[in-house]
Formats: sequence, C-alpha cells, structure tokens
Amino acid sequence: MNAPSKKPLDLPSLAGEVRAGNRAALARAITLIESRRADHQASARALVQELLPQTGRAIRVGITGSPGVGKSTTIDELGMYLIAQGNKVAVLAVDPSSARTGGSILGDKTRMARLSAEPDAFIRPSPSSGTLGGVAAKTREAMLLCEAAGFDVVLVETVGIGQSETAVCDMTDFFLALMLPGAGDELQGIKKGLVELADMIAINKADGDNIARANLAAGEYRAALHILTPRSPHWQPPVVTYSAITGTGIAELWQSVLDHRTATTAPGEFDARRREQQVKWMWTMLEDRWKARLKSDPAIRAKVKSTEAAVAEGRVTPAIGADQIAELLA
Amino acid sequence: MNAPSKKPLDLPSLAGEVRAGNRAALARAITLIESRRADHQASARALVQELLPQTGRAIRVGITGSPGVGKSTTIDELGMYLIAQGNKVAVLAVDPSSARTGGSILGDKTRMARLSAEPDAFIRPSPSSGTLGGVAAKTREAMLLCEAAGFDVVLVETVGIGQSETAVCDMTDFFLALMLPGAGDELQGIKKGLVELADMIAINKADGDNIARANLAAGEYRAALHILTPRSPHWQPPVVTYSAITGTGIAELWQSVLDHRTATTAPGEFDARRREQQVKWMWTMLEDRWKARLKSDPAIRAKVKSTEAAVAEGRVTPAIGADQIAELLA
Repeated sequence: MNAPSKKPLDLPSLAGEVRAGNRAALARAITLIESRRADHQASARALVQELLPQTGRAIRVGITGSPGVGKSTTIDELGMYLIAQGNKVAVLAVDPSSARTGGSILGDKTRMARLSAEPDAFIRPSPSSGTLGGVAAKTREAMLLCEAAGFDVVLVETVGIGQSETAVCDMTDFFLALMLPGAGDELQGIKKGLVELADMIAINKADGDNIARANLAAGEYRAALHILTPRSPHWQPPVVTYSAITGTGIAELWQSVLDHRTATTAPGEFDARRREQQVKWMWTMLEDRWKARLKSDPAIRAKVKSTEAAVAEGRVTPAIGADQIAELLA
Repeated sequence: MNAPSKKPLDLPSLAGEVRAGNRAALARAITLIESRRADHQASARALVQELLPQTGRAIRVGITGSPGVGKSTTIDELGMYLIAQGNKVAVLAVDPSSARTGGSILGDKTRMARLSAEPDAFIRPSPSSGTLGGVAAKTREAMLLCEAAGFDVVLVETVGIGQSETAVCDMTDFFLALMLPGAGDELQGIKKGLVELADMIAINKADGDNIARANLAAGEYRAALHILTPRSPHWQPPVVTYSAITGTGIAELWQSVLDHRTATTAPGEFDARRREQQVKWMWTMLEDRWKARLKSDPAIRAKVKSTEAAVAEGRVTPAIGADQIAELLA
C-alpha cells in the first residue's frame, strides 16, 4: 500500500495524474481518501470534487455471494473476459469486518492471480475503517476515482453479511448474487434481503458432473423469482448458470448486465437510480456525522446508552427517550 | 370523532378512565395524541408515559394486502372470532395517504359492519397527519393506549404502499400478508419487500369454485417461500388458505399467530423483537425531528433542495453536499 507522501500534497498534479490513468497515483489518491487525518480528509474531498466531471462513465456492478461460492475466481475470470473485450477493470470491495479480521476479502491479491497481473486491471482491498458507513463511503469515492482514471467497469465485491449488501447495491448499477447448486435435492436458500436487491442470480460451478444440478437449481430459483414482483418494471432478474473455472456462461452473464443497462436506460431508470443513489449517499453521510456527534463525548454516549436501555425495557416511551437525547444535542 | 375537551385536561383522571377500559376516554386520549397543538403533544407524551406500565400485554398483528383482497371482511371475521374466544380487539390503521384522500382505509366503519357494533371491539381510522413517520408514530402510541385499556389483540391494518408496510411490521409481533388466488394459472406476484416482512401469507376467497385455485396458489407460494431463508431461525412463514366470507380457515389462521408467539417466546426472540422495535421507534422519532428542523425554515429548505439537485446532477460530491447541509444546522 502506498502511504500518503510526506511532501505537501499537490492536488492539481495528483488529479492530473489520476486523469491520465496513472495507477500509482490512483492508489495514492485512494489512500488519501482512506486516511483519517483531518487535513487528508479535506484534501480528499477537494480531489473528488475536482475529478467529479470525469466520473460516471463506468458500468458499476456489485457482486455478492457466501464464502465458498467462488467470488474471487469469478471476478478473475469475468475481469479477464472484460479486458479481452477492451475494457479497463477496477475491483473494489466493501467488507466492514476487515478491520477486525485484518482484511478478509481482497486482502490477498493472489486470490485473483491473473487479473492482478494485468495492466488494465486495478484491484484494491476493502478499506478497513470500522463502521459499514465509513467503509462504504470510502469505497464509493474510490469508485469515482477509478472512473476518473479511465476504468470503464467497476466491480464491487461484498461478503454476504448484514447491511453490506445493501450498501453495495446502493452504489452500483447492477447487483449480482452468486449462488452454488445445492448438494443433492437441497437448494441453498436465498436470503430474503438479497431477493429484494439482486438484478440477477448466477449459479457458479456449472461444470462437469454439476451441470445438471446447476440447471435444476436455476429452474427452481427461476420459479421462485417469478412469483415475486420485480423491483423494476423494465427488468425481470434472470437466473443464469456459469463456470468460473471453464469460463462457460461468463459472456452470457456479462451480456445480461449490458441488457439490463439497455433496458433501463431508455425509460430513464438507469440515470434515475444513480441520481437517487447520490442524494441518498449525501443523507447517509449526514446521518452518520450526526450519530458520530452522539458518540464522540463519553458522557453523552453513556446517557444515550441508558436512555436506550430504559426504552428497550419499557420504562420510558420512545417519544420521551427521543426528547432526552435531543436535549443532549441542543 | 371526539374533539379534545375545551376544559383544562385532567391527565390522571383521563389515564384512570383509559385504564378502566372506558372507550370514550380511549377515543379522547387517541385524539389528544393526534393533535398538533404543542400543549396537547406535551400532555399526550405524559399520558403515554403514565400508562406505559399497563402496556405490552396484547398480541400485535399487522395486516397488509392490496385493495380488493378483502382486508375489511377478513378483519371483521377474524375480530368476531377473537371476541367469541373471549378477547377484546382493537383495530388501528396506518395509511399515510389518508390525509390526501380524506381517509381511504377504516374511514368508514360500515366496512366492518359486525365488529363495529361489538362492545369488545374498538375501531379507529388512520391518523391523517401527512408524513408516514407522523402517522406511524401516532398509531404506535394509540396501540399502547388500547393495551392500557385492556384490549388484548391489536390488529394494525395497512395498505400495501411503499414504506407503510415496513412501518406496521416494525410495530407488530406478527406480520400477515393477505393474497388472492390468481385468475387461472397466473399467480398474483408477491412484492419483494413483502416477502422479507411477512410472518405468514394467507390466501383469501378459498370458497366455492375458488378452493382448488387457492390451494394451487398456496402450493406455489409455499415452494417460493421455501427457497428463501426465513428471517427467524424459529419460524418458517406458513402459507394458509381461508375464506373471510364463510369463516373457513380463520381459526387455523389465528392458531398460526399463536404458534408463532409460542415458537419465538421460548428462545427470547419475541421479547427481543419488541425491545428492538422500541429503540428503533425512538431513533426514528429523533431522525424525523432532525429532518423537520431542515424543513421548518423556508430559506434552509430552499438551500437543501438546491444542494440535493447539485448532488443528483453530479455537480457536487455527496460529501461536500453533506458539508453544506451540516453548515445550515450548525
């Protein structure tokens, strides 16, 4: 990792290098975004604003899947396919647990052996800054920098834990859920929250002896999704099968991503999703700051905890609890 | 509707009458909660706090369904069944559109002809106060007052629109989604958000010629739900059929509500859900107040709108937009 330079930061020059597609400069710019130093944060804000006109041109794809589903091999294979098609591919991640575990996803570049050796690929592990809100905010801005640097596909990987999937869905144009064919008759359950988010379900390991099983699983998932009203009137989430090992189905998988963009661009939905995402990012950042204020002072934090406990135990009504906390902020 | 009395409010006496199960006093107390007058709001807060020790004893059931599914006849039939079993039944509603439409759901008591004539039933239309947050907050407090008045079942009806289902799910122990058998082979789609919330799907109009169709629909919904991982490890949401007209299946439907309570009480999930709901209510109220501050001053409101537009159009980064709005509040 590139530590921010000790020299005074030359923002216009850094912005210029990012725009020119200099990967070392891009890595340095992302490190600046991830820094907690107040002066770095101010510079990072200015840098992203400076580069904003060059952002927005990539297609942004969120990818989720449980451990073992083959996310890294899928991204490796998909990334190589996209580069062969003439794209520049950035791979980012949102993993709020990485602060605890020391970087569980994308920490190890050997997980994407071929892609990490490609000059047209840029792989960056999840920022390891504690809260999901913080991690997601930094990944969003890293994504913008990658776009300014000329990457035209951004893949954002997440682990299938809690709210991290929602966070990644909220920063991407297309949200892809990877699944495995079940062992025997038993299907892997689709987490309910995921059904709401997924723009496509893709079943990996459709190779060798697994092909029939993968097709069977696809049919059942398809039947289940069919009963659900799609989120978009312009897109019924498909269920596809592929193999990250043999590459079978990868081209068709990507074609679905492009089909989704075509289908949602004409009615204005594609742009509307981005506009809404941007406004939602802003409000989320505001709320996070507001909550951070409540946590910064130990005395206030203690009072919030005791109020929460009184409300949870039914000793104080939520309305009066809200009064008490509002007074702390006044 | 009972307007708040012109006389100075005698809170201890009103609380006593509510505790004694006086329906007129209960209606007056709810009107107090719904009032926007600052002195009424302060009194309402004190009243709910005063009655808080007598709350929490009812079973709270949220009921959703699209128009035409037979929500009113279902609640009428279910309510009569519950009263025959010795219960006192309160029926409330969350309908944020009622301010616009003049009260679309539960505005008309004739919709529940038998139940509205029952001394052991209390029916209250949705508060008509504009925002969903405001409507939901008032209904939550009305629910607490009904419990203090001795009602041991609270049914909270909602229309299947946007976030109102989430709001009702967040104030109830059990969330019931009513559906219709499809016409012919075609199933009614389950809205994705609903799948995440529903503790049971119940298919109405399983009578006469419709029985086979209802059973077929139940089988398909069951297969679809089976593929989804349930929200609770202790409860797999069942799919049942019933007829609100003939009453067939109503007892079994209610038995599932009781089974859910039994299954989730022992592992502590039932109480945990309520505790979490209470704390979440508090934070929601705080956030609503905080946002109300941004809307109260026309100059601030205009600045927020222009910042939102700049962020949506990609002229300003979300981080800088958040800075600009935070400055307005400082």
